[in-house]
Amino acid sequence: MELSRRRLLQGIAGAGAVGALAGCAPSAAAAADVVEFHGPHQAGIATPVQDRLAFTAFDVTTTRREDLVALLKTWTAAAEAMTRGVPVPGPAPSDALPPADTGEADGLAPGRLTITIGFGPGLFTAADGTDRFGLAARRPAAFAPLPALPGELLDPARSGGDVAVQACSDDPTVAFHAVRNLTRLGRGTVVARWAELGFGKTSSTGNSGGTPRNLLGFKDGTRNIEGADDAALGQHVWVADGDGAGWLGGGSYLVARRIRMFVEPWDRDRLSDQQAVFGRFKTSGAPLTGTDEFDTPDFGAVGPDGPVIAEDAHVRLAAPENNGGLRILRRGYSYTDGIDARTGTLDAGLFFLAYVRDPDQFVTLQRKLGSSDALNEYIRHVGSGLYACPPGTTGPDDWWGRALFT
Amino acid sequence: MELSRRRLLQGIAGAGAVGALAGCAPSAAAAADVVEFHGPHQAGIATPVQDRLAFTAFDVTTTRREDLVALLKTWTAAAEAMTRGVPVPGPAPSDALPPADTGEADGLAPGRLTITIGFGPGLFTAADGTDRFGLAARRPAAFAPLPALPGELLDPARSGGDVAVQACSDDPTVAFHAVRNLTRLGRGTVVARWAELGFGKTSSTGNSGGTPRNLLGFKDGTRNIEGADDAALGQHVWVADGDGAGWLGGGSYLVARRIRMFVEPWDRDRLSDQQAVFGRFKTSGAPLTGTDEFDTPDFGAVGPDGPVIAEDAHVRLAAPENNGGLRILRRGYSYTDGIDARTGTLDAGLFFLAYVRDPDQFVTLQRKLGSSDALNEYIRHVGSGLYACPPGTTGPDDWWGRALFT
Repeated sequence: MELSRRRLLQGIAGAGAVGALAGCAPSAAAAADVVEFHGPHQAGIATPVQDRLAFTAFDVTTTRREDLVALLKTWTAAAEAMTRGVPVPGPAPSDALPPADTGEADGLAPGRLTITIGFGPGLFTAADGTDRFGLAARRPAAFAPLPALPGELLDPARSGGDVAVQACSDDPTVAFHAVRNLTRLGRGTVVARWAELGFGKTSSTGNSGGTPRNLLGFKDGTRNIEGADDAALGQHVWVADGDGAGWLGGGSYLVARRIRMFVEPWDRDRLSDQQAVFGRFKTSGAPLTGTDEFDTPDFGAVGPDGPVIAEDAHVRLAAPENNGGLRILRRGYSYTDGIDARTGTLDAGLFFLAYVRDPDQFVTLQRKLGSSDALNEYIRHVGSGLYACPPGTTGPDDWWGRALFT
Repeated sequence: MELSRRRLLQGIAGAGAVGALAGCAPSAAAAADVVEFHGPHQAGIATPVQDRLAFTAFDVTTTRREDLVALLKTWTAAAEAMTRGVPVPGPAPSDALPPADTGEADGLAPGRLTITIGFGPGLFTAADGTDRFGLAARRPAAFAPLPALPGELLDPARSGGDVAVQACSDDPTVAFHAVRNLTRLGRGTVVARWAELGFGKTSSTGNSGGTPRNLLGFKDGTRNIEGADDAALGQHVWVADGDGAGWLGGGSYLVARRIRMFVEPWDRDRLSDQQAVFGRFKTSGAPLTGTDEFDTPDFGAVGPDGPVIAEDAHVRLAAPENNGGLRILRRGYSYTDGIDARTGTLDAGLFFLAYVRDPDQFVTLQRKLGSSDALNEYIRHVGSGLYACPPGTTGPDDWWGRALFT
């Protein structure tokens, strides 16, 4: 009785907040502002990319499986509420208790908030080889820590983690609020290991508004998998039930890479070189063999000085045509973390997020790009994480990872 | 001739970009998206607060006054163009040259972009006492490095700077693009010293949409100076011609403080304590002696346990009524810089920006707040800068700081 009255009040409060905000933002209807939380797949993967990102990776500090399960249940309920624009559920408000919700998103519309969870390899087998939670036998064969890859110089303090949460919203305060509240709810069970704020999306998965640009000034994600392309998602993104790990069927693998861009030398490179590096025109985004952004690159075209799209051009090396049809779903954001004190240069770049059916898709691609891509002069992978993202939740009684833990 | 053709082309390109974007954002007309650059005061001070911030402080590395003057002229022209949504001016595009503009804001509307400059005390007298640019005699008497203040533990790597630029826009990529391009243009003359990205505004200066909340979940800036309140601006924000430094008349002083908030212990504090710390109700923002956010606090009200608004409540200590009418114009933003590796806690808080007619307004306030405010248990000032912001530019032939250097 107490619980249902509280839920009712929260529902009303949430609807009120959305309604009030909608009045200030005539371009967005309240309903269009909410992305459904439950479904066969987690939201935030094929969902049209929101403008802002807050990402946090956690280390699990408990050794008790039941604590972890309890947290996943609590997190699922909190995440579901927040995506509706409702405060984090908790005891009835009281002067004598801390508020159940930290409050900074009070009155803000959810801005298509999605909250997506992934489990790191360490949850199945810890770095010291122990099986803390009896999950070692449930680890999918395809799921191991990423091998050392060319083009990387990783900072352990910005890599790894037993659990990762990706919160995306058109409002950065809403995305921040989501990971902050999950962090708070996790106290005693998990501790935040690293975090990144993405200030502008760099890939589209079918939004209106055109292809966004990365911090090198080029359109990024022109040939990305569209969120509505179920065939491509089924082939390249969603783990199938038959892939060898039943609990992960309908899920996906998230590869996170903090890719530092050396923008100062890039900005001093002449336009023709910049375009040769990508194999595309900077302004239009068209391949150097075409005139429109969405023209298919002609990798066989030869000019007076050799191939029009160079052998080491990014678009050639990454193209599905040149990788046996290999594709990934990108969902990256630009980041900046101020000035690199050692060099006086800007610490900025691409927070690369990609969803794949098998981590080997990324490994294959990065082995090739990391060793041959002309872009390597201007980028370096400095942070890394790999996470197995369970399928979506079916309804109010379901919770993140249920099939893994039961 | 060459120059005027280029200018014309840039004007057309800029108008096109704004027009195209306006089509995607029906709530914002193109004209409403541009804040006029020129005027008696710099834009970005009394201007209604935009959603996002990119702030960078620079050290001047040249010792030649003419280099500095040349840069200020280049910066002014670039800033004026960017606020109109036009690329940074430069030589006619050529394959053989680096692009004049880094390009990541191509196709984005300016989002009310303002770019505001300030000069640090070191420009007038360097830390080693030298007068590098012959400006020592032009230093206003009121303008000296801030004294040591209670409540601070400053990181020199996130403090100071000879020149500071505040870029504000509703689009973070546009704000980032602005400071990045000024940094690039400054190569050889200045070097970036520190930077901060503000992801959500925490103060309003007269926008619609209500008072924003800070990361402690409380509304911030309820009693802020309104951008349209010319009387208050004249009394508390704009330096008057008679204030003793002719070149700064119509300008203002910017105080920047990186205020770390210890959100984890705050989030565990009971609601009644949180409200006692601020002297306001969390949800409504009303003073504890009222019911509406904009009710005037009744500092004389006494309840069974003493004053309703405690002696050490933030609102009491900061109120103009209790400080001889002292007011400041706040323009702060929430920031986060990931996880504090030493403690596993969130490195987040308020990037406090305030504009004052005399730095002593801030010093007086912080001496009081830093020693007595109940909020000190949950915050610490960890970065600091003070900058003298010249008046606005009068037109295309004017440039930032002209009256100081000529």
